[in-house]
Amino acid sequence: MSSKNTYMANGFDPSTLDSLDPEMRAMVERRSRVLAPSYRLFYREPVEFVRGSGVRLFDSHGRSYLDVYNNVPAVGHANPRVTQAVCEQMSRLNTHTRYVTLPIIEYSERLIGLFPEEIGQVIYACTGSEAVDLALRIAKYETGRGGVIVTRHAYHGTTTEAATISPSLGPHRPTAGWVRYVDAPDTSVEGADAGRLFADRVRQTIDGLESDGTGFAAFIADSIFSSDGLQADPAGFLKPVVDVVHAAGGLYLADEVQPGFGRTGDAWWGFLRHGILPDLVILGKPMGNGMPISAVVGRPEVLERFGNDMRYFNTFGGNSVCIAAANAVLDVIEDGNLLENIRRLGGLLGTGLRGIARDYPMLSEVRGCGLFYGVDVVTGPGSQAADKDGAERIVNALRQRRVLISSSGREDNVLKIRPPLVFSDADLEEFLGSLRSVMEDLHG
Amino acid sequence: MSSKNTYMANGFDPSTLDSLDPEMRAMVERRSRVLAPSYRLFYREPVEFVRGSGVRLFDSHGRSYLDVYNNVPAVGHANPRVTQAVCEQMSRLNTHTRYVTLPIIEYSERLIGLFPEEIGQVIYACTGSEAVDLALRIAKYETGRGGVIVTRHAYHGTTTEAATISPSLGPHRPTAGWVRYVDAPDTSVEGADAGRLFADRVRQTIDGLESDGTGFAAFIADSIFSSDGLQADPAGFLKPVVDVVHAAGGLYLADEVQPGFGRTGDAWWGFLRHGILPDLVILGKPMGNGMPISAVVGRPEVLERFGNDMRYFNTFGGNSVCIAAANAVLDVIEDGNLLENIRRLGGLLGTGLRGIARDYPMLSEVRGCGLFYGVDVVTGPGSQAADKDGAERIVNALRQRRVLISSSGREDNVLKIRPPLVFSDADLEEFLGSLRSVMEDLHG
Repeated sequence: MSSKNTYMANGFDPSTLDSLDPEMRAMVERRSRVLAPSYRLFYREPVEFVRGSGVRLFDSHGRSYLDVYNNVPAVGHANPRVTQAVCEQMSRLNTHTRYVTLPIIEYSERLIGLFPEEIGQVIYACTGSEAVDLALRIAKYETGRGGVIVTRHAYHGTTTEAATISPSLGPHRPTAGWVRYVDAPDTSVEGADAGRLFADRVRQTIDGLESDGTGFAAFIADSIFSSDGLQADPAGFLKPVVDVVHAAGGLYLADEVQPGFGRTGDAWWGFLRHGILPDLVILGKPMGNGMPISAVVGRPEVLERFGNDMRYFNTFGGNSVCIAAANAVLDVIEDGNLLENIRRLGGLLGTGLRGIARDYPMLSEVRGCGLFYGVDVVTGPGSQAADKDGAERIVNALRQRRVLISSSGREDNVLKIRPPLVFSDADLEEFLGSLRSVMEDLHG
Repeated sequence: MSSKNTYMANGFDPSTLDSLDPEMRAMVERRSRVLAPSYRLFYREPVEFVRGSGVRLFDSHGRSYLDVYNNVPAVGHANPRVTQAVCEQMSRLNTHTRYVTLPIIEYSERLIGLFPEEIGQVIYACTGSEAVDLALRIAKYETGRGGVIVTRHAYHGTTTEAATISPSLGPHRPTAGWVRYVDAPDTSVEGADAGRLFADRVRQTIDGLESDGTGFAAFIADSIFSSDGLQADPAGFLKPVVDVVHAAGGLYLADEVQPGFGRTGDAWWGFLRHGILPDLVILGKPMGNGMPISAVVGRPEVLERFGNDMRYFNTFGGNSVCIAAANAVLDVIEDGNLLENIRRLGGLLGTGLRGIARDYPMLSEVRGCGLFYGVDVVTGPGSQAADKDGAERIVNALRQRRVLISSSGREDNVLKIRPPLVFSDADLEEFLGSLRSVMEDLHG
């Protein structure tokens, strides 16, 4: 990729600026003068959007793109119900949590009602990163120990603390002696043993933290392992690790920023698929359909000591307008029976992807559940070696057909398929047709 | 205060729950069941708000309160222009920064145009805490060193890293060996020497960081020292410290979350009052009038290496809707000539406060500029000892008259007077009249 910028899967390479059409080139140049170089764009040929509606995004020429990637606008781009709730609330009041306001109480009761009864209290923030950072603060304070275990290709956020437990950010991220890495479950290879083997790795890592004096505070995992290539089945494989974590007196932190709010189809939360009970749960991205709201929910006894000893005041966290958006998101999910839609369409998506993968040796394994799937791209036929360039070709060929997905995974060779939750049968058919055409072209 | 909760200036004491009227008591109890105990309410008798407009907030009985405290709704509660901009943008598109969108480019150019020409690039986040955290990441990466110097009662935010440099959070905050504390300027005592003495303290602290091997990365200060009792005059006292910081190869980080966007009256940014040029500037609170947007702006050469080596992707940071809000805020400030309003009314506010302080020995020094003033409450006559309880009595007596201020400072005895920037002459007269009446009652 770029000689200048650190590689990002599906990232635009600024050294190819000259190959863009003049209008896009001018925009990208203008943009890079004022936005710091940490900003990266998607695609070999970046795309400009001016409008969105449901699962469609529109560029400045009025061309429509099918969104099979964005998980933040979970109930659809420019969802009118969320827009109306935000507009009404903005016209009325937008304030912080040091005054009493009723809607945050009502929403909190509603949100907590979606969790097992042991999970009883909430703290709001604005981003998943802030919520991860807060959960780590609570875990370290509650246990009085510092060691945190994450999976080897995890991504948990961008604050210093969250970036420190996000090895997928690469070699220049902040590092610290209190982080330990374990290989995520590899369900393709380990199959039914994945859970037991994973728990064994965590137990050994805890032993190391205890013997070197760091001590064990918490284990944290994205309940669908989005950055570790997507690991979904068999549901239940997380059970043994929770027992190991609790036996060692540590806390289990479920990062539900990606799998939460129904994404996995089987339940509201990814951890519920596994039949486990975390100590703290981190919510983010789809929570406000794009309005910045995130949360840590947890067992009151875990939140109590930190809460009594520390003020945690997040000026914008759970402000009136973000709460209004979050409440409207729950309305849309519940009234639209979206969990059933995700379950049913997710099944069809998995079947459809496996059907295509059978016909093209470049696509090996299909993993996922609900409306979140990953497809391994390999150099086959005959080889199972990761094919990062192949994944990038597929992603960019789909972009040329105006279908948006991306790639990720340990070796950046996993197609990342994750549409808004309001995806329809017709949308699915269009997507599968486009993917098949792209595969046909690439093999042709 | 409460036996249970850590003290917070002007905080509600949960142990006095029984003294509230039944309706409020029921609300507070219901709230504390679902919100973790880290949440604190303002005032001995908390207040419920259901509506806001301009500088007024309204409770559920329709009673109007004059807001002389909130700095987030800088252009007024429920500002119709900001509301309209947000509603229009939400109906159209709300997306992240990995697609090209024009409004973020235009806003960034406009924002950067408000800074000295050396400050040329921006990175967006959602909260001041995230922006502070990011600025520290950049500073440590750029210098390759870890030591950070803050003032002894500073507040910079709530992420682990930001809380670590926020001693005002008290003894249970996270701590680290790389933080060093210096006494903020005490302009009341040091007068014209404040700047030189402050720079001397910083130089000695840098020497300590260098000699113990930690190394010096950055100095960070709120340009109006909001949590160090408010230190404003003589403008220019920050000049010597910038030279000391740069001579040692460190970066000067200006935390403009409180003084930024015209609050201090003399200029768009608090550091400009002092005629200095920081390396990184942190923006937050009023930036989107309550929509969660914050930023790090800085010299491109300081942002370059971090940016080239690190992706920094904040999903909600600078999303289309937050940018629309931020742009409308600039419109309102510029079209309403608010900087002139702040300067003129701020002068009248200072004069009015000094007039009242002359008549009541309980009020000693008045410090501040623009629409941000602090008044020391002491046990006088005859004594200059800090009177925390006195400050609390004044704040709560004003609340009973439906005028909102708060208290803060090293000894929690400083009245914190910081109205929305759309404060008018009539609002000022009402506030000064209420304060005089309260002082009369307390002395009577």
